[in-house]
Amino acid sequence: MSPVYDDHPHDECGVIGIFAPKEDVARMAFFGLYALQHRGQEAAGIAVADGQSMSMYKNVGLVAQVFRPSTLDDLNGNFAIGHTRYSTTGSSSARNAQPFMIETIHGPLALAHNGNLINSAVLREELLAHGVGMSSSSDSEVMTMMLARNGGGTWVERIRHAMERWLGAYSLMVLTRDCVYAVRDPWGVRPLSVGVLPSGGSAAASETGALRTLGCVAIREVKPGEIVTLSDNAWVVTQAIQPAQPLARCVFEMIYFSRPDAVWDGKSVHQVRQNLGRELAHEYPAEADVIIPVPDSSIPAAIGYAAESGIPYNDGFIKNRYVGRTFIEPTDSLRKRGVALKFNVINENVLNKRVVMIDDSIVRGNTTGPLIKLLKDAGADEVHVRITCPPITSPCFMGVDMGKQDDLIAHQRTVEEIRKYVNANSLSYLSLGGMMKAVGSADGYCQACFTGKYPLPVDLETVKTGFEKGIR
Amino acid sequence: MSPVYDDHPHDECGVIGIFAPKEDVARMAFFGLYALQHRGQEAAGIAVADGQSMSMYKNVGLVAQVFRPSTLDDLNGNFAIGHTRYSTTGSSSARNAQPFMIETIHGPLALAHNGNLINSAVLREELLAHGVGMSSSSDSEVMTMMLARNGGGTWVERIRHAMERWLGAYSLMVLTRDCVYAVRDPWGVRPLSVGVLPSGGSAAASETGALRTLGCVAIREVKPGEIVTLSDNAWVVTQAIQPAQPLARCVFEMIYFSRPDAVWDGKSVHQVRQNLGRELAHEYPAEADVIIPVPDSSIPAAIGYAAESGIPYNDGFIKNRYVGRTFIEPTDSLRKRGVALKFNVINENVLNKRVVMIDDSIVRGNTTGPLIKLLKDAGADEVHVRITCPPITSPCFMGVDMGKQDDLIAHQRTVEEIRKYVNANSLSYLSLGGMMKAVGSADGYCQACFTGKYPLPVDLETVKTGFEKGIR
Amino acid sequence: MSPVYDDHPHDECGVIGIFAPKEDVARMAFFGLYALQHRGQEAAGIAVADGQSMSMYKNVGLVAQVFRPSTLDDLNGNFAIGHTRYSTTGSSSARNAQPFMIETIHGPLALAHNGNLINSAVLREELLAHGVGMSSSSDSEVMTMMLARNGGGTWVERIRHAMERWLGAYSLMVLTRDCVYAVRDPWGVRPLSVGVLPSGGSAAASETGALRTLGCVAIREVKPGEIVTLSDNAWVVTQAIQPAQPLARCVFEMIYFSRPDAVWDGKSVHQVRQNLGRELAHEYPAEADVIIPVPDSSIPAAIGYAAESGIPYNDGFIKNRYVGRTFIEPTDSLRKRGVALKFNVINENVLNKRVVMIDDSIVRGNTTGPLIKLLKDAGADEVHVRITCPPITSPCFMGVDMGKQDDLIAHQRTVEEIRKYVNANSLSYLSLGGMMKAVGSADGYCQACFTGKYPLPVDLETVKTGFEKGIR
Amino acid sequence: MSPVYDDHPHDECGVIGIFAPKEDVARMAFFGLYALQHRGQEAAGIAVADGQSMSMYKNVGLVAQVFRPSTLDDLNGNFAIGHTRYSTTGSSSARNAQPFMIETIHGPLALAHNGNLINSAVLREELLAHGVGMSSSSDSEVMTMMLARNGGGTWVERIRHAMERWLGAYSLMVLTRDCVYAVRDPWGVRPLSVGVLPSGGSAAASETGALRTLGCVAIREVKPGEIVTLSDNAWVVTQAIQPAQPLARCVFEMIYFSRPDAVWDGKSVHQVRQNLGRELAHEYPAEADVIIPVPDSSIPAAIGYAAESGIPYNDGFIKNRYVGRTFIEPTDSLRKRGVALKFNVINENVLNKRVVMIDDSIVRGNTTGPLIKLLKDAGADEVHVRITCPPITSPCFMGVDMGKQDDLIAHQRTVEEIRKYVNANSLSYLSLGGMMKAVGSADGYCQACFTGKYPLPVDLETVKTGFEKGIR
Repeated sequence: MSPVYDDHPHDECGVIGIFAPKEDVARMAFFGLYALQHRGQEAAGIAVADGQSMSMYKNVGLVAQVFRPSTLDDLNGNFAIGHTRYSTTGSSSARNAQPFMIETIHGPLALAHNGNLINSAVLREELLAHGVGMSSSSDSEVMTMMLARNGGGTWVERIRHAMERWLGAYSLMVLTRDCVYAVRDPWGVRPLSVGVLPSGGSAAASETGALRTLGCVAIREVKPGEIVTLSDNAWVVTQAIQPAQPLARCVFEMIYFSRPDAVWDGKSVHQVRQNLGRELAHEYPAEADVIIPVPDSSIPAAIGYAAESGIPYNDGFIKNRYVGRTFIEPTDSLRKRGVALKFNVINENVLNKRVVMIDDSIVRGNTTGPLIKLLKDAGADEVHVRITCPPITSPCFMGVDMGKQDDLIAHQRTVEEIRKYVNANSLSYLSLGGMMKAVGSADGYCQACFTGKYPLPVDLETVKTGFEKGIR
Repeated sequence: MSPVYDDHPHDECGVIGIFAPKEDVARMAFFGLYALQHRGQEAAGIAVADGQSMSMYKNVGLVAQVFRPSTLDDLNGNFAIGHTRYSTTGSSSARNAQPFMIETIHGPLALAHNGNLINSAVLREELLAHGVGMSSSSDSEVMTMMLARNGGGTWVERIRHAMERWLGAYSLMVLTRDCVYAVRDPWGVRPLSVGVLPSGGSAAASETGALRTLGCVAIREVKPGEIVTLSDNAWVVTQAIQPAQPLARCVFEMIYFSRPDAVWDGKSVHQVRQNLGRELAHEYPAEADVIIPVPDSSIPAAIGYAAESGIPYNDGFIKNRYVGRTFIEPTDSLRKRGVALKFNVINENVLNKRVVMIDDSIVRGNTTGPLIKLLKDAGADEVHVRITCPPITSPCFMGVDMGKQDDLIAHQRTVEEIRKYVNANSLSYLSLGGMMKAVGSADGYCQACFTGKYPLPVDLETVKTGFEKGIR
Repeated sequence: MSPVYDDHPHDECGVIGIFAPKEDVARMAFFGLYALQHRGQEAAGIAVADGQSMSMYKNVGLVAQVFRPSTLDDLNGNFAIGHTRYSTTGSSSARNAQPFMIETIHGPLALAHNGNLINSAVLREELLAHGVGMSSSSDSEVMTMMLARNGGGTWVERIRHAMERWLGAYSLMVLTRDCVYAVRDPWGVRPLSVGVLPSGGSAAASETGALRTLGCVAIREVKPGEIVTLSDNAWVVTQAIQPAQPLARCVFEMIYFSRPDAVWDGKSVHQVRQNLGRELAHEYPAEADVIIPVPDSSIPAAIGYAAESGIPYNDGFIKNRYVGRTFIEPTDSLRKRGVALKFNVINENVLNKRVVMIDDSIVRGNTTGPLIKLLKDAGADEVHVRITCPPITSPCFMGVDMGKQDDLIAHQRTVEEIRKYVNANSLSYLSLGGMMKAVGSADGYCQACFTGKYPLPVDLETVKTGFEKGIR
Repeated sequence: MSPVYDDHPHDECGVIGIFAPKEDVARMAFFGLYALQHRGQEAAGIAVADGQSMSMYKNVGLVAQVFRPSTLDDLNGNFAIGHTRYSTTGSSSARNAQPFMIETIHGPLALAHNGNLINSAVLREELLAHGVGMSSSSDSEVMTMMLARNGGGTWVERIRHAMERWLGAYSLMVLTRDCVYAVRDPWGVRPLSVGVLPSGGSAAASETGALRTLGCVAIREVKPGEIVTLSDNAWVVTQAIQPAQPLARCVFEMIYFSRPDAVWDGKSVHQVRQNLGRELAHEYPAEADVIIPVPDSSIPAAIGYAAESGIPYNDGFIKNRYVGRTFIEPTDSLRKRGVALKFNVINENVLNKRVVMIDDSIVRGNTTGPLIKLLKDAGADEVHVRITCPPITSPCFMGVDMGKQDDLIAHQRTVEEIRKYVNANSLSYLSLGGMMKAVGSADGYCQACFTGKYPLPVDLETVKTGFEKGIR
């Protein structure tokens, strides 16, 4: 479906790493990636090591499309890392698929990365100047080649040296011939957790849901600045560099990216989203007859808003579960009804009612209006829109694709202008304070997309220029 | 995913038919099928006529996989029919994909069928005895060849003659070189509706949601026994044979098959499902702290149960939205956790709580137990299961694949035995009367899967034997 | 490659049939089709019966592309027929692929056909009028449906009844649940032979080369009008209808279609082609330094011409062995050199020489000129063209695609005009008498493409009209 | 087809490079690769530069399978290089496909390589030790990364520096953002030629036939040790390092690899092969009735042998032109006739005759015997085998895959033992002197596969060990 039907930012990856002394580790990695599919639908890959050699398979497509039984059968070993990728451009998808795997003086090395280095362009120039040839425009290859270049006696030391140079977000899985390393940047931007496998060994993944799918217990976060070594019977934790003060966890993981069964920073994402709805009900109550979510991401918040307000919760939209990638363009008359191809209204649930429509965010602002129109066409008397975060006014440079600043509707218009533009009876965004109250932390979170205050002291112009060149 | 992760009956098709004098009818049919994808994910096809000739494309796969822009560009005309198919066996999928298209003495003819003839084996033998060669085992080919054989001056007459011989369920789209006919059996087993297109012309489809996706207005059912002719500016209705007394609408369309935005028999499916939940709360209340649905089909009923009982509604399970067809078998240790690959629990929402789990039906009974275990492992104190229909004890011969009678857990065990088997604290099925009260009709619905009383006076043994031979 | 690079008529099929009581008959059919690949590269299929049921697989592509080990593993039995197909249009290829398989009142039936019925349109109308629906425009489906309709106690009788109605060319393999029938039209237009398999059973095929590839011994022709039954230990021959007087064997099989290792009418095709060259040398000698063939089909004739004339034989052209189907159009500058993409000259072998270029036929006349230019550009002093058959002036209606009459250069121009058009120093066609002398028969061969005298007493206009409608 | 049906060594690549200021260079590269398809059928790729940026497409498959019109449309520019690859293992084919393309400090760089470095393992270790990560086991990536590392002001200088380190065979195309460089090793092992394009610009290719397909004139060899720069209107020749004394041209290019229309070292390959046949007739005459080649490679030599001996030339075998890659294994009874699946005999041409069978080489010796058996089964009285080169006793380390030494039948057996093994009436190999006389040079050719005397002064054990590890 063309982007017009979806107005969410895009996260760029899910990663997984597994050490399983007694199991078919490729198959476990497959099911782990399966549970991380929502973090990237463009490409998937798994690299496996058996103590001596390393093998890999990656391709464009959904996890279930990329892997066949025969593909997995060729990936033998007890150590694995995997990656699912979101990508903006079709042509480069194959080349930028991960893991990246190379041979180094220290043996084979593979890497799967979620995040974004903001000094990637600088580091890349350094590598090129040292005579290294680069085969992609990805910051992940920069990271891989830096690890290959680094001296030092152990992989942990080499990774630590690289971490000292890396600025930005990285939740990283590193595979060597006999070890998996789970590495997280000192700002803690992207989530990463580790758990114990019931059959022995351990696993790390972007979200706890993937670990629980594998049956993991004793799940904990990989803390900012840590390298967690998965091998032997127990994992080993190294505080490679000190955590940033304050941390800069991505608050959008709470609002939208993570699957609601994730637990992050000790908090249930589903419960945080319920809280967001409750705070919203508190800050911006509405005289209404029914609370409806924009499915699926806003369901928990709508449940929370309904519980707090005492107004009944109900389904208002039905989402076509099978809307996938299609290259078929609608006819002109259908184009006008673009959103209807993805959502239908349940007329009886909104007819002659005052509706509160809960949505998690507005980025470009091109779906809110059509959704409201669908509701009004179905007979809703009033539509009050409530958004579970503040207006998004600044782009992200740490792994989230929100487009350029000029694409952001809240950068271009006031809330009242947006309300008119989408033809809502009322429109309210949760306040920054309300959002953080719902999250349960006063600080430690990056709020740059709402405030423009970036947590890393870098030259923003350089980063922007690099972005425009496609270097990230 | 292997069937172990899903315990629903399977419906066998969605159909659509369009006459659009000014539009690209193939593209409209594509988006109509898109909205009927939930009725069949194995194969899809579209046939188009331009007043003179007819062209068709069909293949195995999801609608969005089967059709490319170039494919649709080859399908020119103002008349179209389309089909999405559920199929049990991979090998025959390509050959049994629909529409069926043939050349007849009366010109080209194509047919798309949802339902099942119970006298298909007999009709097939008659055709063979008349020297007709048959290329598939499908009752839809039987119907096509009967239409080709029939004399009579008009297609409406030929269709009527055939209807007199057809016993069973058929919601049928017939395409000729300059007309689309929407045909429904006199029992009204499967749904079929027709509406006016905003840009001129009209459309018919299995569900009203597909018609509304296309922007249709003035939507009405194709009534049992009717032939609705789509051509020229208005549609023409012919009551080809008298409706059965009583009708035998499939009540399972209300309970599970139809998308909740469908309106059928004048009733909103979403509201019927809410009513089912309310009736269930009335018949089988529970002392509990939270009401959770098994997503997605049970969500409306859970909302209804919560509203009626006053117990809060919340999400308990997160469903992996990307669970698609995979040929990867889980490892042994993952196999034990099969359901977890599809569902994860939101621990915090059930921890230390008494949970009411709402599900629409239990067929084989192999997912209820694992779901309860997931909840209890997550800390639920009690799990009370409430099912929105009576126990299913008899198979369907009118287009729904529930397996054989011995596969049905409620045929083999009492409710108490099932409760023990799935390890629920309590288990209750909605009564037949309660179900019909929720539906809002005392009769006119087929309830054979609950009662074993089939609405058609046929020799059941013959039908069963034919089924075993794969003739349907 | 676009047709401009090849100026040969196209044959439309190869067929094979096998009964092998102790062998994997699908795999044998595969290798048999492999040896018949030159008779059709568009689609391939195999149907297999095991005494009870029948299974089939067919698809677009070369034999080696269509079949995978798993595909063959699904085709179990001791009886098989197979087909390779040449097709003019991409869109219909999948639907017209053979075998055709249907269920009839007499059990399952499959058919693989090489040839063309000239009364196909009439027979098709009869079937339609009897209420049979037809799913393709192929005469092979007409034949299949006629067999399904026919009464009579045995398949041999039913086939005989049909043969009485069929006018035209058919070398036919018929598969029932426990028998293979090899059937040949009474005119003997297309070749068909049968042989004994070394491991028991027997096989029939379009060409003897395929039978020898399978190791067959005791190879004989299926004679015109015969039905040969392959089952049990020996084959059974039925003279179903009397052979035509005279026969009308396609002389072009000798000149071009058949692979040179074929033996037909008791004659080695390679030796006949050598004879054609010898006759040509006798009728049209040339003062020259070297004899070169247009590879591959003209090699035997060039060997014969060289032997008869005493002028040395040598290679003049190298053919790109890997020229396959490509959708890439050449650039403008390459387009002018179209033939060079398929053929390169060996300069040293023609430089400063008087060259005799032997070719088997000229159809449209669009490659001869470019080939001569290649030779002259390479330094040939003179190019004398010798063609191993008379000028082609009339199209074929019995299974060979030569295009329409207006496409035939010899219909439009005299030999001298053609010579000037292609810029040859001399151009000579073998005489009809010389050709038949080389073949070794005074009559019994269809020469209609050279003479316009068709061997069948039919209304030519009807046939032509049917052809234009695509009914064949 | 499994290797048993072919007993030739395998060459590993064809390369092409084009500068065309006014043309669609990707399309020209496509047709150039098309003409080099015989040098490698496993993978193909094209990289294009437009003065600024570079794009590339490569994949597993034949040239015509790899490229679609849309693929070529994405490759815009005036500079191109291309590659066709032969590869031993399926799993690594995708990763080892060429060109290799990287970004360097000097801008984008792509490389297409035919040949083999014998010191690849050493150079690779050096790169790894410098901290470069390597993503394949190919010597071509080693060459690419060395070019990326090299300092020096110009690409010609950087290439020259690398050439000083490279030991072995390389006919290399280097693409930068605004130039193509054709580079050849100082031993001249693999062929490489350059020519002027009729529409402006110039092209280089492994064989002259590809250049002539593109219409090139003024074709000359890229001489050993030269770098030829293709850009602007004229090419620029740099003698980067001095040619070796003596040269080590691969004589097997003359005997088998090159297409017969190639001209190399000023000699027509077709004429050299005729000479080989003539020398063979002189050294080893035979009392015989017919001379037949093993098609296709031995045809010119058989023509020469026939001309010299006065014994008639004729076809004896017909080769299945469509034998391509199939995964279908023959049945047991067919397996015994393996060769017959590829070759059929024309019985009439050998029946009751004394046959001389000309073949270019015997490597493993597993097809000669079956071919002789086919001839004798067809009635040949005697079969005298004549081979156009001496016995092959040593493997090649410079780009030809002949297997290991123990695989070579002439390393294991005497000529008489081989004759008995293949059941020939006589068997003779052309002498080394006779071969060189036919080639027309006393020295300047590598004959190591016949003599074991390798032209490069390297530690053979190191090379062998590297080969066993797959480093090449």
